[in-house]
Amino acid sequence: MNNLKAIADKLMTMDNIHILTHRYPDGDTLGSAYALCGALQQLGKNAKVITSGEPAKKYAFLKKGVKEQDFKREYVVSVDVAATSLLGDNEEEYKDIIDICIDHHGTNSIEAKMKYVDATSASAAEVVFELMGLMTGVILDEHIASCIYTGLSTDTGCFRYTNTTPKTHLIAAKTMAAGAPWEKINAEMFEIMSPARIELQKLVYNTLELHLEGKVALIVVTLDMLKKAGVGDDEVEGLASIPRRVEGVLMGITIREKENGIFKISVRTNEGVDASAYCGKFGGGGHVAASGCTVEGTLQSVKEALLSEAERTL
Amino acid sequence: MNNLKAIADKLMTMDNIHILTHRYPDGDTLGSAYALCGALQQLGKNAKVITSGEPAKKYAFLKKGVKEQDFKREYVVSVDVAATSLLGDNEEEYKDIIDICIDHHGTNSIEAKMKYVDATSASAAEVVFELMGLMTGVILDEHIASCIYTGLSTDTGCFRYTNTTPKTHLIAAKTMAAGAPWEKINAEMFEIMSPARIELQKLVYNTLELHLEGKVALIVVTLDMLKKAGVGDDEVEGLASIPRRVEGVLMGITIREKENGIFKISVRTNEGVDASAYCGKFGGGGHVAASGCTVEGTLQSVKEALLSEAERTL
Repeated sequence: MNNLKAIADKLMTMDNIHILTHRYPDGDTLGSAYALCGALQQLGKNAKVITSGEPAKKYAFLKKGVKEQDFKREYVVSVDVAATSLLGDNEEEYKDIIDICIDHHGTNSIEAKMKYVDATSASAAEVVFELMGLMTGVILDEHIASCIYTGLSTDTGCFRYTNTTPKTHLIAAKTMAAGAPWEKINAEMFEIMSPARIELQKLVYNTLELHLEGKVALIVVTLDMLKKAGVGDDEVEGLASIPRRVEGVLMGITIREKENGIFKISVRTNEGVDASAYCGKFGGGGHVAASGCTVEGTLQSVKEALLSEAERTL
Repeated sequence: MNNLKAIADKLMTMDNIHILTHRYPDGDTLGSAYALCGALQQLGKNAKVITSGEPAKKYAFLKKGVKEQDFKREYVVSVDVAATSLLGDNEEEYKDIIDICIDHHGTNSIEAKMKYVDATSASAAEVVFELMGLMTGVILDEHIASCIYTGLSTDTGCFRYTNTTPKTHLIAAKTMAAGAPWEKINAEMFEIMSPARIELQKLVYNTLELHLEGKVALIVVTLDMLKKAGVGDDEVEGLASIPRRVEGVLMGITIREKENGIFKISVRTNEGVDASAYCGKFGGGGHVAASGCTVEGTLQSVKEALLSEAERTL
């Protein structure tokens, strides 16, 4: 692993840079990427963020602060991407040509010419913030501050998840002082829901089940429920935090039907139960308190598999 | 208004101090009071927190860090109390003998020998934090850090309400570094709900109504619903944030039946709509984005009165 200053120095010499984000782009990968893109453009460089799949509408403001530039790619930087398989549609084109990898996932497996992974950072945005501080001439303008705030706020559930550190708060303070519209960002990221999304919330609350003497809570989101509520696929975020909220629950499981017997599972845990190890049993992973995996089968068989593995874990 | 250093100096000379909190005690008034109590006890003084009504169970940990002391009262300090009428059961005994008033409500009307109100602070806990920093010999121990974190986190909805400032985050960082169990605090304040409380949440979601072309959202919490869900009166907090979450809503109103035709109203607003002025029309008040009042009548008449005033406001 390189030190961050060496990476900052190298970036200063680069131009015509593609910045890669992970698939199903979230606030941290997008915030980190657009912050870095804005910083590189401030320095007069050509830079562009490459996403796999269209980001949800609520992230559109992150893009507004950078210029759309056409150029011939010379260098590739990835942010918040833990493995090349997470590049989605961009995997084939980019997997072997990453120059710099910036991340905060301890499990990062990317082979890049230069690499910096800080697993103590709650968000990749914090690492990018520190990186920008080491690049001569980068100014924390309102756009970059907004991007960084979005990354750290979304990856910590607004300073609530166990990954939050004093550093997260110090950087939040700096980005607020630099003009990030943090109230609007938090409202859009965490609060505001369309009437249809509220309807879905009602339906989902009705599926809540407690298992294993109340240590496991489970909710289900089916394609039927999405249809009934009339919500789009990009409005489903945030449901996964519901089951963990029930008093006494150590493991909150969200089963989301994707298509043809494929279910995306989100696991959130309390009191140090290792969600990442649990999801690893199903070929997934993530963080200790928040992980995910994909399981195939019928809703019933998926539920049974998840619960019997939960019994072994707890 | 005195400066905070003069108040700190005065406190250093005092002993046998009662610290007053506001009625329906919340995380900020209790956190501020127990932090100050802990600080005064660190300095070898006798100090005691006086509450009106038993605080909710989830706040019990704030009390654990202070010693129970019996002494003859010499001085009285109020924290987070905007008016003597908010002292509840303690109003008669204390209203004319407050020596020091520490607060963050711009509307504070208390007459005290010394007074410091900082309306730019999101929480009274921030003012108490600064006050303690000016008192020689007070150490930010784990208990005091927990109290302060609780105050600032609860009064800002975990750093989300518009009253949050960079200072809030800086103090959060310091209290986290000092060992405040912030994850546990936030989980207990914002996340964890009993199965009965979850049941209530379901019932309340079903009462959600949109009015005035979607600019006003309204929910109702009746005594019947509390009974049906089986929740205690101290488990109702947090519902008031629901109606404001609907996309396009400027004013979210929660009508909570108390008894015999008395309804407690909570108002949360978006985009600068003045909830305090609105509640003022019904004899209540509070902050711009979060206020309350009490209205008597039938559910129907109360609803109509609130909506017609909302129409005038918007």
